[in-house]
Amino acid sequence: MRTAFYISDGTAITSEVFGHALLSLFPTEFKHQTISFVETVEQALDAKEKINKVCARSQEPALVFHTFVNNEIREVIDSCDGIIYNFLEHFVAPLEKQLNMKAKPKAHRTHSIHENSYDHRIEAVNYALANDDGSIVTNYEDADVILVGVSRSGKTPSSLYLALQYGIKAANYPFTDDDMDELQIPTFLKPYKKKLFGLTIDAQRLIDIRENRLSNSKYASARQCRMEVREVEKLYKKERIPFINTTKFSVEEITAKILSETGLQRYKY
Amino acid sequence: MRTAFYISDGTAITSEVFGHALLSLFPTEFKHQTISFVETVEQALDAKEKINKVCARSQEPALVFHTFVNNEIREVIDSCDGIIYNFLEHFVAPLEKQLNMKAKPKAHRTHSIHENSYDHRIEAVNYALANDDGSIVTNYEDADVILVGVSRSGKTPSSLYLALQYGIKAANYPFTDDDMDELQIPTFLKPYKKKLFGLTIDAQRLIDIRENRLSNSKYASARQCRMEVREVEKLYKKERIPFINTTKFSVEEITAKILSETGLQRYKY
Repeated sequence: MRTAFYISDGTAITSEVFGHALLSLFPTEFKHQTISFVETVEQALDAKEKINKVCARSQEPALVFHTFVNNEIREVIDSCDGIIYNFLEHFVAPLEKQLNMKAKPKAHRTHSIHENSYDHRIEAVNYALANDDGSIVTNYEDADVILVGVSRSGKTPSSLYLALQYGIKAANYPFTDDDMDELQIPTFLKPYKKKLFGLTIDAQRLIDIRENRLSNSKYASARQCRMEVREVEKLYKKERIPFINTTKFSVEEITAKILSETGLQRYKY
Repeated sequence: MRTAFYISDGTAITSEVFGHALLSLFPTEFKHQTISFVETVEQALDAKEKINKVCARSQEPALVFHTFVNNEIREVIDSCDGIIYNFLEHFVAPLEKQLNMKAKPKAHRTHSIHENSYDHRIEAVNYALANDDGSIVTNYEDADVILVGVSRSGKTPSSLYLALQYGIKAANYPFTDDDMDELQIPTFLKPYKKKLFGLTIDAQRLIDIRENRLSNSKYASARQCRMEVREVEKLYKKERIPFINTTKFSVEEITAKILSETGLQRYKY
């Protein structure tokens, strides 16, 4: 199996995203290896040695995705036995021309603390945790969005991802069995109706997830899951609450759809 | 201010990372706009219209970062009035040659559910929440890593990020004032000493954060914060617990450093 290296002077997240976007186009498997925080020539030489060892052991040279710009470290990495892919170098010159200014490469630029976005995100994480699962129902004034849905439809991971990735304050409120007789928007949520965003999920997937948590319970029964899903979807439609079905979506996709449909602004780019 | 568009048939996360990595090299500000889930020619025409409107209003054409590969939609976007940057097209041909196979573009490939990594991540989020802040101290057998540190040194956001981004199960345990007389590793953590990873923080930053939460308290006092930081750092050194100072690092950097120092494997690439 071919090895792909992702290397950078910082987190290497950009190199990973860059390499993964390309490799996912190919119908084959790769071995992945990240080398982050390569900040000195010595560390670059270590990285080069690792790559060269892998290349020596294999008939196929390793693929090396990196984002170093213009420096000694880049030259060390570029001199390894792997095949180098550096997307920055293809685009910096055309962008310099278009923007009519010189690029000023700094180390650690992409995923470091900057633009005041950091405190926003930590505050949003604290908000999501404090307002998870309907634990407090008096804080909705501060919410950017309030996710609603049945238990295990994806509310908590989505709230946390919105906070960590985008600095968005997402509360979430679960509709439980007790709510199901004539399901309606709870009184304390009514003033915030415009902030509501519904999640739903295929009943069969819900049954599987709940069975995994609480086997042979009423909570995980087919009858209960089907009823809950039917009731919340009826509510979303009646009250015109925007909603998505999370069954086939990753947390990245769910949250990107929430941003796209609500027009909420990210605090971090 | 120049507008940058990030466009894709999926979440547009790859386009955002790609564009942001490039634009962060330039010492100027941009207006950012994401258009996700452009899955039909009609939606592409809508996106094109949005871009063209922005271009018409400004003297400088918008920058358009996208990742469409080989299709009708790409042609529509490429025909807009903005300046197009598509990193995939530069690299697909060389990679096809290197891998000796044709790329098979699929929509929604990068950030969708795949490779069984999804359940791992949700499970890891549930684990992080259940084992946050020392709330349960009997589950450490399952932890991949146990973050320790004083209150507000970054344990919770780091645990959640490790779970959401990498599928890694991170518990976290806070050292509080009660632990500070002759601080040592608590009995229930001793069997898992190899999983411990310490966070520390500059006392002044800790004072600021705690003041923000609980103004004029002993908890936020300079004396208390300095003492706590001094004690945990002493413990890390005495017990040879690997640790980092989180003061100047984003949650991406903290977690990338934890992965780099522990050698923990990501479940998601």
